[in-house]
Amino acid sequence: MNHRIRILGIDPGLRRTGWGVIEAQGNRVSFIASGTLTSDSKASLAERLRQLHDALHDVIALHEPEEAAVENTFVNKDAGATLKLGQARGIALLVPSLHNLAVAEYAPNLVKKTVVGTGHADKEQIRMMVKVLMPKAVFNSDDAADALAIAICHAHHRGSAQGRMALAGVHAK
Amino acid sequence: MNHRIRILGIDPGLRRTGWGVIEAQGNRVSFIASGTLTSDSKASLAERLRQLHDALHDVIALHEPEEAAVENTFVNKDAGATLKLGQARGIALLVPSLHNLAVAEYAPNLVKKTVVGTGHADKEQIRMMVKVLMPKAVFNSDDAADALAIAICHAHHRGSAQGRMALAGVHAK
Repeated sequence: MNHRIRILGIDPGLRRTGWGVIEAQGNRVSFIASGTLTSDSKASLAERLRQLHDALHDVIALHEPEEAAVENTFVNKDAGATLKLGQARGIALLVPSLHNLAVAEYAPNLVKKTVVGTGHADKEQIRMMVKVLMPKAVFNSDDAADALAIAICHAHHRGSAQGRMALAGVHAK
Repeated sequence: MNHRIRILGIDPGLRRTGWGVIEAQGNRVSFIASGTLTSDSKASLAERLRQLHDALHDVIALHEPEEAAVENTFVNKDAGATLKLGQARGIALLVPSLHNLAVAEYAPNLVKKTVVGTGHADKEQIRMMVKVLMPKAVFNSDDAADALAIAICHAHHRGSAQGRMALAGVHAK
């Protein structure tokens, strides 16, 4: 499992979807690219989902990741917000799959625990640790930093039973 | 607005997505086809969403609808179920949009009111009225019957301000 692999992390959202591409060799990670995709809030929902689809497609075509990881986010707000997140998340899971990438899912707590060392880290700590682990990392939003953290989480766990389960669609917690 | 138009109705779900294609000329509707798409519950979520994507794509390629309508379903169960529905619903909105179809969204109550005459109709009444309105209709599940009802709802409202709003992404209630 110690060959170099390119991983795409995605932090999905209808308004903003963060993405980050890293290269990993075992637990050693290096930064490739990151960014934030937005959808036009004045467009219809179907059109916004298509914008996310098209933009994620372009990211994958450009950076050619070999595996993908998406946060298994849970919103405890109202059902409307959860439905909205679900729709964006559906696209984040679909597009890598359309490119024949395996897509792992990780719980937010495992992402934080892997990157910061505790399951209750805040956004500031995540940004800081992403920079410590990958000094060349740049990101233009918390969502992009989160996406890089998700990719790092997958780099650490993909060789383990937990990571293989995540790749098979069993949510790793 | 009185030319003949082909409409695809979709009742989304991760386990079962119902679809129905009708032709409408004004308020007159006729049955073209319907069916139920399923995804493999043993596959990963990303893979299941891809199965729905591929199957919906095939339905559109085969039956060539010109507009689509999706129920703006609301689940009042737990957040996990809502997130799951949202993911399937994201695909149901995306795929017609990828085919350049406008996608209208309708609240379940409006669908029931349009087809049955009351916003509180049950599944049995919907099935019956779909058969009354389109005697040649066949469907292999409640989801397929619901999808036909959604298509009928769009046929009735697409010429109205309400329908045009639904097509623009403002949910008609």
